[in-house]
Amino acid sequence: MISKEQLVGDLNSIREKSPLVHNITNYVVMNNTANALLAIGASPVMAHAVEEVEDMVSIASSLVINIGTLSEKWVKAMFMAGIAARDKGIPVVFDPVGAGATPYRNTVAAQIINICKPNIIRGNASEIMSLAKENITTKGVDSTTSSNIALDAAKRLAKQTGAVVVISGAEDFITDGEIVHTIRNGSALMPKVTGMGCTASAITGAFAAVNSNYLEAATNAMAVMSVTGELAALKSEGPGSMQLNFIDELYKLTGDKLYKQVDFE
Amino acid sequence: MISKEQLVGDLNSIREKSPLVHNITNYVVMNNTANALLAIGASPVMAHAVEEVEDMVSIASSLVINIGTLSEKWVKAMFMAGIAARDKGIPVVFDPVGAGATPYRNTVAAQIINICKPNIIRGNASEIMSLAKENITTKGVDSTTSSNIALDAAKRLAKQTGAVVVISGAEDFITDGEIVHTIRNGSALMPKVTGMGCTASAITGAFAAVNSNYLEAATNAMAVMSVTGELAALKSEGPGSMQLNFIDELYKLTGDKLYKQVDFE
Amino acid sequence: MISKEQLVGDLNSIREKSPLVHNITNYVVMNNTANALLAIGASPVMAHAVEEVEDMVSIASSLVINIGTLSEKWVKAMFMAGIAARDKGIPVVFDPVGAGATPYRNTVAAQIINICKPNIIRGNASEIMSLAKENITTKGVDSTTSSNIALDAAKRLAKQTGAVVVISGAEDFITDGEIVHTIRNGSALMPKVTGMGCTASAITGAFAAVNSNYLEAATNAMAVMSVTGELAALKSEGPGSMQLNFIDELYKLTGDKLYKQVDFE
Repeated sequence: MISKEQLVGDLNSIREKSPLVHNITNYVVMNNTANALLAIGASPVMAHAVEEVEDMVSIASSLVINIGTLSEKWVKAMFMAGIAARDKGIPVVFDPVGAGATPYRNTVAAQIINICKPNIIRGNASEIMSLAKENITTKGVDSTTSSNIALDAAKRLAKQTGAVVVISGAEDFITDGEIVHTIRNGSALMPKVTGMGCTASAITGAFAAVNSNYLEAATNAMAVMSVTGELAALKSEGPGSMQLNFIDELYKLTGDKLYKQVDFE
Repeated sequence: MISKEQLVGDLNSIREKSPLVHNITNYVVMNNTANALLAIGASPVMAHAVEEVEDMVSIASSLVINIGTLSEKWVKAMFMAGIAARDKGIPVVFDPVGAGATPYRNTVAAQIINICKPNIIRGNASEIMSLAKENITTKGVDSTTSSNIALDAAKRLAKQTGAVVVISGAEDFITDGEIVHTIRNGSALMPKVTGMGCTASAITGAFAAVNSNYLEAATNAMAVMSVTGELAALKSEGPGSMQLNFIDELYKLTGDKLYKQVDFE
Repeated sequence: MISKEQLVGDLNSIREKSPLVHNITNYVVMNNTANALLAIGASPVMAHAVEEVEDMVSIASSLVINIGTLSEKWVKAMFMAGIAARDKGIPVVFDPVGAGATPYRNTVAAQIINICKPNIIRGNASEIMSLAKENITTKGVDSTTSSNIALDAAKRLAKQTGAVVVISGAEDFITDGEIVHTIRNGSALMPKVTGMGCTASAITGAFAAVNSNYLEAATNAMAVMSVTGELAALKSEGPGSMQLNFIDELYKLTGDKLYKQVDFE
């Protein structure tokens, strides 16, 4: 069950424990992702070599796999890291960036779900519908539909895979296939900054590292993202300042601010 | 023929159509490039896997190839994507980053021109002179000469290749081999931000997606870049704030501001 | 011997000569690194293809090798570039990011030291202790200990390798195995920005390009980093604005400001 107390508690846990979050992610967002994890109090590491991903994941508290700019060797490393994580009981978050855009992405996304058995899958509406085998084409990496339209697909995907499924959008939905949590915070500037979704997945990795109830972890991560986005947007003139202010606000986010601002159920 | 009305019209078209611009570009600038494309209203995607570049380009409205940090597999993907784009009539923009610095870059740049037949080539003065087989050495990725010195080489390159050729610099020149357009906007802070040229090429991809007169498209893209740079520099204390303000100003750029500010012929 | 006059002189030399610094570095920090080098007045280039690293290093004034996100091909390119640099007398700076975190990193770091014979090695305390074969585990890429604890290891490593060794931290130490320089400037916000250490290594490359006394060069580079960090932190609300302000302050840094602010011995 989600609660504001649990939400604040998870944030505090991240800051106390500073969990190591291992990211195998795309080139576009690595810098943002690392900065967001540092800002929230976690410890990021990026490593993708097949020679070391298993060792790296073994010292990590969670693994985030993101296929934004995938290629053969990286996909192999994702599989290896995912298997190692599951073997050691380390939570796996999967971000199926661009699923629905090309057959290769669809194939790799399906393989990652089968092989790495992610605990949490986070995507935009198009990506989640694509994973659930809805007939939809993603426009590159951008969604072509809204999050509430994808909710049924998300539930089905959650049941099929056993993962908690998150749809990011104007409203965020988080579901285990039965229960659905909704987050109403956020800002229209967020999708104007590249990689905000990828940052959400990385932050979800931090929450999954401190809360093994993944429905709660994913919900709390998205709540922090959306509240931070809302606070950052108040100070921003455009996506450039938004990117910077998001990191500052995440760093300065207190339990009190979060408690007051969050609008979820 | 360029005109302020056409310039504003192209900007509005990008915002209405939100064209998907497929970038195969370098690691240094991917984040900036994606943010600039989002800020102007286009939809960016980065994809380089040989397994998917042909599929990705087939749903895109333009392709931007940039050799800033090239390697074997990426070059192969560039060829494949370029051929697919030309086969489907999708415009190709080529940014020969660092041409003139090493024999490998020279070879790859020549191959891309031969194989992908770009519609627009955009570089700094050294790079354009190097492509036109002038005897010049590029200093890494920075130009060693000024744009007006390279103008004859640009015209010759345009005639040889059939591409519109753009030289970025204090003044920008855009030529099809006969007609030469000149843009006098800009700021000395622009070359102090890494990847501003790469951003110019990506923005050119957005304009080429909405205007098939590539001399116009390239000119209008460079006009938007230079005007935005000018506006951003007014608010910036150095290259750090310039990078951010550039994205904000591009996002906030109106047809009116552009119309008033642009100084081109 | 270090002195404030020499420090200011080195900064001025970088701005006059604008040395080309060739970086083979990680995906996370490339943009920051390039911007920092531009801001200080150097000319950055990133190139990692085995087909061109030897040619690129031959036109460069220094080489910076950073193993933040290593993989097989990149490691091969690092070896080739390092050998070429040493053959031509071009200084080599090595940043052993994450040494101590995985066996692969430890192996590659040892190989780079043996093969490329770096003139300067810069890392955090955990990384330096790991290179000196202290029994320590790095937490991903973050240090698990403080810089003064690592000082003996740094001295030993300097003697073993012939390199100047730099430990970054709340205090920075720079040693050739005998002499130890200490820098007391800096800010607690610096480790909250990803890649600040990588930026330090790149800036060290710029100083090594203009001062062949590598103990001085490394000390002066770290002094500039720490003073700039201190100035930037005064204006920053969090790590987001810190990243931006760092670049602005580096760009605006004058000899006078540096002279007044630096606290080293």
